[in-house]
Amino acid sequence: MEIFWDYALIAIIAFAITGVLAAAPRTQSVLSLVALAVISAVGGGTIRDLILGVPVFWLQHFQYIWFAIVGALIGFALIELFKRWKNLLLYADAVGVAVLGVAAANKSLGLGTHPGVAVMMGLLTAVGGGVLRDVLVDRPTLLVQRDLYVTPIVVGLIGYVAMLQLGVDRQTSEGLAILFIFGVRAAAIYWNLGVPDWLHVHHSWD
Amino acid sequence: MEIFWDYALIAIIAFAITGVLAAAPRTQSVLSLVALAVISAVGGGTIRDLILGVPVFWLQHFQYIWFAIVGALIGFALIELFKRWKNLLLYADAVGVAVLGVAAANKSLGLGTHPGVAVMMGLLTAVGGGVLRDVLVDRPTLLVQRDLYVTPIVVGLIGYVAMLQLGVDRQTSEGLAILFIFGVRAAAIYWNLGVPDWLHVHHSWD
Amino acid sequence: MEIFWDYALIAIIAFAITGVLAAAPRTQSVLSLVALAVISAVGGGTIRDLILGVPVFWLQHFQYIWFAIVGALIGFALIELFKRWKNLLLYADAVGVAVLGVAAANKSLGLGTHPGVAVMMGLLTAVGGGVLRDVLVDRPTLLVQRDLYVTPIVVGLIGYVAMLQLGVDRQTSEGLAILFIFGVRAAAIYWNLGVPDWLHVHHSWD
Repeated sequence: MEIFWDYALIAIIAFAITGVLAAAPRTQSVLSLVALAVISAVGGGTIRDLILGVPVFWLQHFQYIWFAIVGALIGFALIELFKRWKNLLLYADAVGVAVLGVAAANKSLGLGTHPGVAVMMGLLTAVGGGVLRDVLVDRPTLLVQRDLYVTPIVVGLIGYVAMLQLGVDRQTSEGLAILFIFGVRAAAIYWNLGVPDWLHVHHSWD
Repeated sequence: MEIFWDYALIAIIAFAITGVLAAAPRTQSVLSLVALAVISAVGGGTIRDLILGVPVFWLQHFQYIWFAIVGALIGFALIELFKRWKNLLLYADAVGVAVLGVAAANKSLGLGTHPGVAVMMGLLTAVGGGVLRDVLVDRPTLLVQRDLYVTPIVVGLIGYVAMLQLGVDRQTSEGLAILFIFGVRAAAIYWNLGVPDWLHVHHSWD
Repeated sequence: MEIFWDYALIAIIAFAITGVLAAAPRTQSVLSLVALAVISAVGGGTIRDLILGVPVFWLQHFQYIWFAIVGALIGFALIELFKRWKNLLLYADAVGVAVLGVAAANKSLGLGTHPGVAVMMGLLTAVGGGVLRDVLVDRPTLLVQRDLYVTPIVVGLIGYVAMLQLGVDRQTSEGLAILFIFGVRAAAIYWNLGVPDWLHVHHSWD
């Protein structure tokens, strides 16, 4: 087997752990849970690759799936730990979201897409797996929570693309964007922040 | 940026507006709502292009996404208006469904698919975005409502494909199919019609 | 029209019948129900082909869709029969799952994928359509049931791929894998077995 490494593998593990923990309360069989963890971990990137029209990333590098399975097993093993320190999980998710979002925007730009597509692919990759998982286990998806989740990702990715267009070098832009997304998420977790009122939807005439 | 126009852009705006209005009561952050409006507007066409194996339409023409975002902003701006005249929204949706359904069937036929595939792609494009949106915000999807929704689209698209096969010219067939789909939907909205009893599923032994 | 036959067509009919019966209690219009039956029947294979990057199987052979529609009509016609003998339906589904799962693993291996991808594609094809249907009609998906469903499919497919790698001939491996998956499912239906306790997820701290 070919040797292969990619810093996105860290994010894959983080997402698989969060997948186990989010799906466990509503799942009945261990193998279903592993399947849901794998979907959480690679679902967003899979949809991204389908839309971009490139081969799905884990078809060529099956390591991604192994890492997702390892993440699922870690999630199982440490389930009691994560129950006590729920925020640990949220921070792990924040790392995954920031790293994978920027990596996906990069992949998109590398294929010559419109910068707006890069922002969309970053968001899709960052939240797609979690949204899929929530739909499959019938939890309210991230998209309907007031939690500061989608907002910092979109803002960070727009900033990333804008920096590149303004000529800031890639490594600096990447670092700043990841720091920004992770930073805002971490602050939101630590101080329990929601979407600020002026970005909040007030209507409820359903 | 290349100049680009397409009458489907009108439908994209209509779908984005309906997306905002349908998702608003269950969404908490403005950016999530814009994301849901974009998914409502381009989701069906995206799945169509993936299945047909052609490049996703908004990758090449990012204007579609801009129009969807404009539609989302219009939806926000006019939210009070739409709350008072709820039917306005339903009529806008009926225009979008009719126009996009026929356009998608055309695209499919232009690729040389089986006429039945064209009907399926028309239906998928017309309702796919709305169904995706409803799944993501956990509303009952269009597919489970008794409202006359899927039926006129399928009948209109089968009629469209049949007219083309019988040698009716494209423009006439398009016009008649769009008029039929929009007309039946509009009548259903105006007189509050449901699926007729002989097309209604009576079983409920769940 | 070209003559075409494939033993997966039997599975397609079985899935369409189960699609009608699962969706009927929550659907209001006959055409929506047919659409849901078609999605149940071909949804899993469609996602498989998109991920594998090959043309979607029913684009070239529209017979699959006709068979799904025939299955839907059989489901309608025999709905009273299936209501009395609910297990008949579950056995039909077990046949479909076993046959389509192994066929999908074959297709994947034939494209030169990693054996792990073949297992994933088999599982996805076997359960994907049913999961899609459940999401669309807002039923709890198969993935959250304690019923022995995902487990025998995964174990059977891993066994299948392992037998091939160990040099067992294809026909024997196929036969054994299908028998195993169907057998465990049938036993689970007959004796009402759930996931064994050591494979059961006990956590529920939601």
